[in-house]
Amino acid sequence: MFNIAIMGHGTVGSGVVEVLTKNHAGIAAKAANEINIKYILDIRDFPDLPYSDKFIKDFDIILNDPDVQVVVEVMGGLNPAYDFVKKCLLAGKSVVTSNKELVAAKGGELLEIAKENNLNFLFEASVGGGIPIIRPMSQCLAANEIIEILGILNGTTNFILTKMIDEGMSFDDALVLAKQLGYAEADPSADVEGKDACRKICILASLAFGRHVYPSQVATEGITKITSVDVAYAAAWGGVIKLIGKAVKLEDGKLDCCVAPMLVKNDNQLSSVTDVFNAIVVRGDATGDVMFYGKGAGKLPTASAVVADVIDCVKHVSARKYLFWDEGYTDYVIDSDQGEAAMYVRCKTADSAEAATVIRDTFGNVEFLFCKEAPAHEITFITPKGKISEINKKLKSLGALLEVIKTMRICE
Amino acid sequence: MFNIAIMGHGTVGSGVVEVLTKNHAGIAAKAANEINIKYILDIRDFPDLPYSDKFIKDFDIILNDPDVQVVVEVMGGLNPAYDFVKKCLLAGKSVVTSNKELVAAKGGELLEIAKENNLNFLFEASVGGGIPIIRPMSQCLAANEIIEILGILNGTTNFILTKMIDEGMSFDDALVLAKQLGYAEADPSADVEGKDACRKICILASLAFGRHVYPSQVATEGITKITSVDVAYAAAWGGVIKLIGKAVKLEDGKLDCCVAPMLVKNDNQLSSVTDVFNAIVVRGDATGDVMFYGKGAGKLPTASAVVADVIDCVKHVSARKYLFWDEGYTDYVIDSDQGEAAMYVRCKTADSAEAATVIRDTFGNVEFLFCKEAPAHEITFITPKGKISEINKKLKSLGALLEVIKTMRICE
Repeated sequence: MFNIAIMGHGTVGSGVVEVLTKNHAGIAAKAANEINIKYILDIRDFPDLPYSDKFIKDFDIILNDPDVQVVVEVMGGLNPAYDFVKKCLLAGKSVVTSNKELVAAKGGELLEIAKENNLNFLFEASVGGGIPIIRPMSQCLAANEIIEILGILNGTTNFILTKMIDEGMSFDDALVLAKQLGYAEADPSADVEGKDACRKICILASLAFGRHVYPSQVATEGITKITSVDVAYAAAWGGVIKLIGKAVKLEDGKLDCCVAPMLVKNDNQLSSVTDVFNAIVVRGDATGDVMFYGKGAGKLPTASAVVADVIDCVKHVSARKYLFWDEGYTDYVIDSDQGEAAMYVRCKTADSAEAATVIRDTFGNVEFLFCKEAPAHEITFITPKGKISEINKKLKSLGALLEVIKTMRICE
Repeated sequence: MFNIAIMGHGTVGSGVVEVLTKNHAGIAAKAANEINIKYILDIRDFPDLPYSDKFIKDFDIILNDPDVQVVVEVMGGLNPAYDFVKKCLLAGKSVVTSNKELVAAKGGELLEIAKENNLNFLFEASVGGGIPIIRPMSQCLAANEIIEILGILNGTTNFILTKMIDEGMSFDDALVLAKQLGYAEADPSADVEGKDACRKICILASLAFGRHVYPSQVATEGITKITSVDVAYAAAWGGVIKLIGKAVKLEDGKLDCCVAPMLVKNDNQLSSVTDVFNAIVVRGDATGDVMFYGKGAGKLPTASAVVADVIDCVKHVSARKYLFWDEGYTDYVIDSDQGEAAMYVRCKTADSAEAATVIRDTFGNVEFLFCKEAPAHEITFITPKGKISEINKKLKSLGALLEVIKTMRICE
């Protein structure tokens, strides 16, 4: 029998108990050991559960119990999760977490402590919910050099964008619906402003390229400014708008990494990822594009990823998994306008015909977009691919004739 | 330094050498050991390679060299691969293979020998080329009960169908093009008749449900009878035709498993998998649908999957991976007409109006399909979902009025 403790009994925590209970026999066979939940840590009371006797409120009970070799952290948030996880690792306990905020901010440090103590610190559930991505990236793609990662990493924003695209809803109405369906929280800012996607691309980029990328280093833009008109222009171009997390390794070893709404062509696999689904494309030098797709959130998908990590810990209690990255450094991620992209540019202008001539003279081969939803006195186009700072400089040079309302990257 | 031997120097074998050479340092770091190719077994001569000195023609040299702890089998075919792999395992060497024919036919027996000898027998590359699928299924989804697997498992047929769908090519012309591009072999029967996809669904189903499914148990139908008219009817219905490998666990523990061309709705993720790409949907009780997508074949993608397994063997030379299934039994897979599906039915009839009435009386709520490519005197419809044997019985009861030309399953 193998004792574990679970810290947190919210959505994911209760899901972990459910999965461990429901698939008990199959899990014991796969772990080659029976897994027993010895403690559940939560500040709240849960008097009416069949396992109410397992609840404790004092973290030190877990910390000081040598019987507990694996601790599951599903509290979320940085504090006290960071303090608790660090203490567990220092006390010789392996840790499994679904906490993307923790891993994105402190993953490098915690992996280092785990390595020094020959323990596992696993976090499959922190990205993509139930989609296997951390382990395939670290193991299956071990023989590849990863060139780029592109992903739809947040289900809430993807749901909202899908409703805007498929049903012509406004952002506000789609957000209200997402809240009604339980896909968006009362305070949806972490989702709609891209912070959640930012944490996930940080974790993926850190793992893929071997060095910690901190959320503060990644230019992050949400979807709150996307309107039905942008959606219509994108359709006219033959694509859709998706919130994309992107990380590309550059020749000098630095990264181009950002989160932003981008235009995705309809023949790109990512364009058909709708509703609350997530998808992550990993571009390897040998494999080419490999995509992982599924529900990126939800109680049972996330819990099943946590439990898979627990099984791995139990099976390999004395053998560390290869999962590691070095600390980051200040200018490891380039400024976002130093990256390259073709850009969607939407402008106001009093004279469309003259504006079109000036745009062509400035950018060369552009593609103008027309749609019936376009407001009067607007001109919208796609620039050729170039350094974003150069494109911005050219846009400024257009002078009084054109007022830029919005720009977005084209996703390749 | 860790010595390995490679058996076979064809496309995949030479790719394995290339990946091991090109990404040597990164691989050594991940394996925590330097990997050295000691022998390459091939009956042919390769006098002009930088590593020509490694070639041997006598398998016993590998078998009798205690320095070689991991053997890579990339010869393909059942013989002599089966004999060689079995001898290697019995001699205490772990084996990595990309050979789907071998794993589909003999996987259960070889896994048993590996288990008895505490060795690894790994075959990530046997399904989906460079797409990580075997390891995620066995590990990441360990906390799930898998309910169903659905996949586009053969790139050649998917390329041919894509050309028929997108460019209106005939099957014959698309096959010629596939040969010209190197996607189809001179004898394309293993691909176009579904045998290759059959081997892969056997491997996936064996792993997912824990018991060997043999290719001979799986009703297999290729794409040679699909015509442009079928493609047009499918488009009229709002979908495409794809060659699908499917395995579903039934309540009594048996499997419904088949390979056949099926109609896939345009809102199904599998419909957008085009060209030589493969995709596998794994339906779990906790994760819901998870999809893995990428190039299912090709030298470097397949080689990178082989090398990832080699890295795993080297890292875990004394720790067996959990990868196992029991032997199968005779009626483990139900007869294919005992499964359930809605069906596409194409008939000849002299009297469409009367035929429609009879069809409605027999099947109830059917959907008739109309397209401008439809030949005269045809009536085509989609039946409600039901047991296929029952649908066939009803079709027979339609009598002289209707001559069934073709039926296909609807993919759910």
